[in-house]
Formats: sequence, C-alpha cells, structure tokens
Amino acid sequence: MKVVVIGAAGTIGKAVVEQLGQRHDIITVGSSSGQHQADIADIAQVRRLFEQVGKVDAVVVAAGALRLVPFADITPEEFRVGVDSKLMGQVNVAMVAQHYLNDGGSITLTSGIIGERPLIRHASSAAAVNCALGGFVRGAAVDLQRGLRINLVSPTVLEESMPAYGPFFVGFEPVKASRVALAYARSVDGAETGQEYRVW
Amino acid sequence: MKVVVIGAAGTIGKAVVEQLGQRHDIITVGSSSGQHQADIADIAQVRRLFEQVGKVDAVVVAAGALRLVPFADITPEEFRVGVDSKLMGQVNVAMVAQHYLNDGGSITLTSGIIGERPLIRHASSAAAVNCALGGFVRGAAVDLQRGLRINLVSPTVLEESMPAYGPFFVGFEPVKASRVALAYARSVDGAETGQEYRVW
Repeated sequence: MKVVVIGAAGTIGKAVVEQLGQRHDIITVGSSSGQHQADIADIAQVRRLFEQVGKVDAVVVAAGALRLVPFADITPEEFRVGVDSKLMGQVNVAMVAQHYLNDGGSITLTSGIIGERPLIRHASSAAAVNCALGGFVRGAAVDLQRGLRINLVSPTVLEESMPAYGPFFVGFEPVKASRVALAYARSVDGAETGQEYRVW
Repeated sequence: MKVVVIGAAGTIGKAVVEQLGQRHDIITVGSSSGQHQADIADIAQVRRLFEQVGKVDAVVVAAGALRLVPFADITPEEFRVGVDSKLMGQVNVAMVAQHYLNDGGSITLTSGIIGERPLIRHASSAAAVNCALGGFVRGAAVDLQRGLRINLVSPTVLEESMPAYGPFFVGFEPVKASRVALAYARSVDGAETGQEYRVW
C-alpha cells in the first residue's frame, strides 16, 4: 500500500514510519521536513500536498499542537492553538484525503489520553480537542463513501516524552512510541472504521 | 440565586427560564432578545455582557449553532460554524464567567446526543463539537478555583424540534424541553462538577 504519514519526523511519526515501512511504501510529510512539506492547519497547503502526492491507500496523521494553560488565565488565542492545529488540522487532512484515497482506503488520526479520567491540570483546551477528534471520527465514519475508513489512535504519555511532560502525568504509565505505532498498523492494515484505539 | 441564562429565547432556554425561575432570579440573554444581547462567538461581547451584569451565582448557556453537511461536500467554513459558535462560544462564556461568579457558583453548558452511538448522517462537525464540550467541561472542572463548578447537559432531540429535525432522528425517542430543563436545575441547584447530564 501507498501510505502518507504526516508528522513523520515526530516521536510517534518516526515509529509509525518504521512500523508501517516494513510492509508499505511510505510518503513522509512534515511542516519543515520529509519528502513533502505542509502546515495542515492551512487547508490550501493540504490541498496542494495531495495534488502533488496523488492517489494513495492510507493516510496517517501524527501532528498537531496543543497548549496546557491554567483555565483561570487561558486566553481565547491560547485555547485556539489546539483547535486550529490538532483538531482543524487533522479535519482538514480528512476532508481533502477522502478524495485522493483509493476505494477501501483509510485515514488514521491521533488524539491522546488527555480528556479521559483522570483529567490532568491545565488541560481544558487539550481535553476539548482530543474528545472532539473522537466525535469527529465517529461522525465522519458513517458518512465516508466507497468503503473508506477512518479511525483514531489515542496514546497515553510516551516514555520518550516523560522528560518534558512527566510532571503533568504523575502516576500515568508511559508507553514506548514503538508500541503506539502498532495501533496505527491495526488501523491501516485492519478492517474497522469509526473506532478509537487506546494505547494505555 | 442570581442566574444568567444565555439563549433564553430558544426552545430549551425558555424551558430553563421557566424551571429555574421558580426558585431563582433570572437574567435573560439572547443574540437579539432578552434583557441583554450578546453574540457569544465574540468574546468581546461576552466580556461586555458580564461587565454589565456583574456578580452572579450561576450561568447557563443554551445557545450555539451547528451545521449538518455530508462529509463528502463539507467545506472548512461549514465545519467551523459549530466550532466557532457552539464550541468556542460556550468556551468564551466559561472563560469570562469564572471571574464574575460568586464562590461555589456554577456554569452549565449544552451539548447534545449527536456524537454518541448511533451516529447520524452528515454529523462529523456536530459530533466533534458536542464531544469537545464533554472534554472541555471535564478539563475545566479540575482547574476552576473557589469551588466553582461546571457541568454539561446533553439532550437528545426535542419533541418541539421533530418537525424540523425528525428525518435525521428516525428511531430516536424525543423528549420535551421541560424535561431537559430539569437537568439544568440538577446542575445549578446541585453539588457536582465536571459531569455530563444526558437526557435521553
């Protein structure tokens, strides 16, 4: 299969490329690296990306920014970082990709544990964005045509990210990016749609 | 208690005013009706609203637009109607209201059954927005100070809305707005926070 991986240079993206690259032809995309560059928050760049790439069998997105800010202080602009990047960026990819996927092809997006209990501090925006992605994937799945599938991978905190995010995730059991990558393989190589694969 | 009801002229809002008005002093707000006017998608208007209203004990929001559009055709602009109005509008109210609520006061927002199974057609944006509100309320609840509370009411389709939305909700059991209003009373007069009260 021809598989586009957006966010291929990230911690999860690199593991996904390694995992899926064992069986599939991978096209790597990043905001400033990879075979193609695109800022997914800008749908014009997403459209240009797929015009360049053409028909594919699967699209994986492991990209999108979030901000953790105390709710007492958060500004609308800070709240919107996650909404514009991680939510609308991935929605942009799904909206465009559906028209470039071969019949039965798949879209796999990325949320995260923030939004599920126990909630962590400073996560009102992050929780909204991750839960929005769950609803989006379920809603889009029943509308997609030609047997196209869409699923969501929701990882807990990564072992590789604990130096940066550990203080927010005391008591959470981190997982290796290579284990998270298996969930993307279950989505891409699997048969389901509208599902959320939790890795925690 | 002094309770602000935003969206007071809507089908749910009118029922909430009638229900809460039996025990509390109600301040009605609408986009073009009520004692005060504000478009909640514009945070500057929300700030002006609370500068006028001052300290209150509870805020209820039953406002916000959504679009139902087939995913094959939906534009980013159509997708963003719900994100900007129902999601960010209600988030704007919560961000501002927290600074005007008396200790122990509450914020009650509104989502809806779309986003839960069974998913209906043309609802990718609506499902994202409703589920985002669930995550937002859980995330904000653990961050709010001074005993402030925040909850979510998630109604199924209203009996009063079946003439307009019935074809989308075949097999769903509609509820009267007056019954939905009881969930807002359970939030405003109750003790919980971070909860989602489903009415279906």
